[in-house]
Amino acid sequence: MTQTVKIAVVGASGRMGRALISAVSQNPKTVLVGALEREGADTIGVDAHTLIGETANEIEVTADKDQALANADVIIDFTAPAATLAFADYAAQKGIAHIVGTTGMSADDDTKLAGFAEKTTIMKSGNMSMGVIMLSVLVERAAKALAAQDWDIEVLEMHHKHKVDAPSGTALLLGDAAAAGRGIDLADKSVRVRDGHTGAREEGSIGFATLRGGSVVGDHSVLFAGNGESITLSHRAEDRGIFARGAVNAAIWSVSQKPGLYSMRDVLGLND
Amino acid sequence: MTQTVKIAVVGASGRMGRALISAVSQNPKTVLVGALEREGADTIGVDAHTLIGETANEIEVTADKDQALANADVIIDFTAPAATLAFADYAAQKGIAHIVGTTGMSADDDTKLAGFAEKTTIMKSGNMSMGVIMLSVLVERAAKALAAQDWDIEVLEMHHKHKVDAPSGTALLLGDAAAAGRGIDLADKSVRVRDGHTGAREEGSIGFATLRGGSVVGDHSVLFAGNGESITLSHRAEDRGIFARGAVNAAIWSVSQKPGLYSMRDVLGLND
Amino acid sequence: MTQTVKIAVVGASGRMGRALISAVSQNPKTVLVGALEREGADTIGVDAHTLIGETANEIEVTADKDQALANADVIIDFTAPAATLAFADYAAQKGIAHIVGTTGMSADDDTKLAGFAEKTTIMKSGNMSMGVIMLSVLVERAAKALAAQDWDIEVLEMHHKHKVDAPSGTALLLGDAAAAGRGIDLADKSVRVRDGHTGAREEGSIGFATLRGGSVVGDHSVLFAGNGESITLSHRAEDRGIFARGAVNAAIWSVSQKPGLYSMRDVLGLND
Amino acid sequence: MTQTVKIAVVGASGRMGRALISAVSQNPKTVLVGALEREGADTIGVDAHTLIGETANEIEVTADKDQALANADVIIDFTAPAATLAFADYAAQKGIAHIVGTTGMSADDDTKLAGFAEKTTIMKSGNMSMGVIMLSVLVERAAKALAAQDWDIEVLEMHHKHKVDAPSGTALLLGDAAAAGRGIDLADKSVRVRDGHTGAREEGSIGFATLRGGSVVGDHSVLFAGNGESITLSHRAEDRGIFARGAVNAAIWSVSQKPGLYSMRDVLGLND
Repeated sequence: MTQTVKIAVVGASGRMGRALISAVSQNPKTVLVGALEREGADTIGVDAHTLIGETANEIEVTADKDQALANADVIIDFTAPAATLAFADYAAQKGIAHIVGTTGMSADDDTKLAGFAEKTTIMKSGNMSMGVIMLSVLVERAAKALAAQDWDIEVLEMHHKHKVDAPSGTALLLGDAAAAGRGIDLADKSVRVRDGHTGAREEGSIGFATLRGGSVVGDHSVLFAGNGESITLSHRAEDRGIFARGAVNAAIWSVSQKPGLYSMRDVLGLND
Repeated sequence: MTQTVKIAVVGASGRMGRALISAVSQNPKTVLVGALEREGADTIGVDAHTLIGETANEIEVTADKDQALANADVIIDFTAPAATLAFADYAAQKGIAHIVGTTGMSADDDTKLAGFAEKTTIMKSGNMSMGVIMLSVLVERAAKALAAQDWDIEVLEMHHKHKVDAPSGTALLLGDAAAAGRGIDLADKSVRVRDGHTGAREEGSIGFATLRGGSVVGDHSVLFAGNGESITLSHRAEDRGIFARGAVNAAIWSVSQKPGLYSMRDVLGLND
Repeated sequence: MTQTVKIAVVGASGRMGRALISAVSQNPKTVLVGALEREGADTIGVDAHTLIGETANEIEVTADKDQALANADVIIDFTAPAATLAFADYAAQKGIAHIVGTTGMSADDDTKLAGFAEKTTIMKSGNMSMGVIMLSVLVERAAKALAAQDWDIEVLEMHHKHKVDAPSGTALLLGDAAAAGRGIDLADKSVRVRDGHTGAREEGSIGFATLRGGSVVGDHSVLFAGNGESITLSHRAEDRGIFARGAVNAAIWSVSQKPGLYSMRDVLGLND
Repeated sequence: MTQTVKIAVVGASGRMGRALISAVSQNPKTVLVGALEREGADTIGVDAHTLIGETANEIEVTADKDQALANADVIIDFTAPAATLAFADYAAQKGIAHIVGTTGMSADDDTKLAGFAEKTTIMKSGNMSMGVIMLSVLVERAAKALAAQDWDIEVLEMHHKHKVDAPSGTALLLGDAAAAGRGIDLADKSVRVRDGHTGAREEGSIGFATLRGGSVVGDHSVLFAGNGESITLSHRAEDRGIFARGAVNAAIWSVSQKPGLYSMRDVLGLND
């Protein structure tokens, strides 16, 4: 029987923080032991479970780092680069694992993170949905095997009507996986607009197409179109909770790993 | 028991002409009685069925209009505007039905065609695939019923890598059907490119997205994305022969109609 | 400027009742004026909006019919046949519109309901998702136009892993719409199992296929497969709230109708 | 610059033989050097390219094994088990590569084939579509990574109305790939029928669903349905020629391999 994994959530009262508290609460293998917020936040002192509409469980949101983190096996962190580096430092000193979903980290930040990862387990990923990471692995694999002269790659995505940019970050992540499989740089080969007289498709290019409408959480497809046949690899997100659940699964995985800097592909055992 | 419908194909040795001869040959309700080409074509005198890899059947390609057409119940015509008007004149005089797939006709040409249609049955359509016409009717119906404030319309199409323009004519035809259902002008509301910071989707707009790759004959989807649900109406062409078969079905239908100018929606009984 | 529609929800504290209260609360055109539960329910006296995690709004759940209903323009009712007939009687006497999502009503119950509908507006439907009703209309239309000898109809559905029956009620509703379009009885023509040596597909049959897995709320597709082309008409439910929202939209529509028994097709203006 | 690969087709005048001759003719890297048929076939003496509607190229269909095969680099063979073993013997003696698409071979036949493969390159596969093999690799990979307790696997296929069995052989091949990824036996876990009261889905089962209609060449999808997200991996065959083209690609690959018994996964470099 494995032991319950003790988790601290930082940035606890933000939208992602609450989703994380909820995912920890729902997972039978994890328990919330700390909820950190910055000094002055109006949720300080509130019970973390009441934040998500559940019964209070005695874990209060606090601005006291030691109170929130010292008892944890793993810190889950979707905050900001500077805060994340400070948490990584703390985690490295205490031997606590660190799951990082923070975006916008510079190459320099990543180097520092790798330094802390010499002393503890750090897993960092820009997308913690198991399904999307799995898909990116499959896309890379297929793109490596299916020659550009015979197979054309296209990436299609659809999101809700409120989304303000295109293509989605996940569409680009999948395009990068395809480019990696082909050993090319996506920026050199991507076709992001088609309208009017486009001419025939250029061999080896990777096309993007964007749909917007309704309340779609996120659909992504990568098409490999050959001569007389095609393969389509798709992911559908039904629910934004998948990102929080992916982080919690990564946390459970992290407690049995050696120190090092890992990705979600490691969590899924897909880097072998 | 209905009688076999006697069909003459004009422009008989072109790519579409051959597809029409093949479709007439394969349809048990129709028989080829004439195959017209212009004076000097090198297929003059060749048996029409050998053109399509079948056994000769005594109908030779000819440049003699009376020989090719006088014995027909219906002329099928995917030629050019001037030729089509001449065939319509001939058909009107002889009481022969006329199926017109010719594109590029001007408003003035259409007026003349309507004049000939006072004396015989003329069916004109820019796309004779039964499936696409059916889809356009469904799209118009749905667009009329599903209010723009609650349902976003998107049109997606995919074609083979050799296609040089975007969106496809059929995607625009479907967009027009959606706009007609909404009582708007497509040109005012279409969004044909999304890249970078697009802002949120504008209510009532009709978006287009284009995929290119492989050997895909033609896939089209119209999406109606609402709040918590979506409807997708799709057509897939497997085979270019559907356009010729649609024309032959229209020909069979035409022989029992009163004089008038009809569309494929009439053939399908969808204008009631 | 139209007036806000005053709505009473009966069966207020059940799962569907709460979804209805939530949908009324979120719709700017409607306001909750009553919430009825049966005598003895432990939610009696609780504020209806606290039931759904919102701020109290002074409408308490009550077992007093007059208190709950007398002030309403419309009653929304997903209860049971006997209760529904009693509410219809009350609504007919008071001139209140009645939206009925109750299932399991007998032919005799329906006759009684029609009697009450002589005095007030009653709308009854087994599925109040706008998208599914729209799809059923499109399916019927397509099935009427696309001849059985040329087009094969198949119905595919997918639902979450907990669903215990197959095919889904909505799949059968769509199969019925297809059969209605063809002028046949679904029971005579449906093929619900294919395994092993099935023989070739029988002309005019309507096939069903069922997928189960994960947390899928409900996907339905009706395929029309022809010679060289196919049409697919699909619906995806992302969120169970669409059924409640459909009921609220029906309620808004109902207040400007003459007495009579209506369906969701009337609400959508699809019976013209 | 690589040399043109010289190919002999056995069973040359059958349906698959003709498709192979056509695929060899269309591939710029290959040339037909022999076309074998059995003694007494009425195509003996006919030019192989006239069989496929092309201009004669001096390679006549023959029943003389040495005339047909001695000059070849590779034999492509979709015949029958006994004939295939004889061709493998011949190929092994002469050092000719052998591409085997023959079905129905026994375990004993396979052992003999492996014996001949000690002396020459033999590639055997029940499906030579590059796309389907690629898909099976991806399915196995995904099934290995996505735990049965969280992800449900379903296999959906659609074929034309003339197909007489269900599920398709390729659906079962994909189901086997999923089972291999999970380390289970498909036969123990497959659910091939769902109708009426099925109960909830059993964890770890692999479901099949079958659609039939129109002229669909072959669509296959494998769905991995999780909690809040799903992945779908699909293949669409547009054209039966993909199987012949896959064999020709395997033939080109085979000439640079060491002796051994290979599969299409080796051809695609997917067994590393």
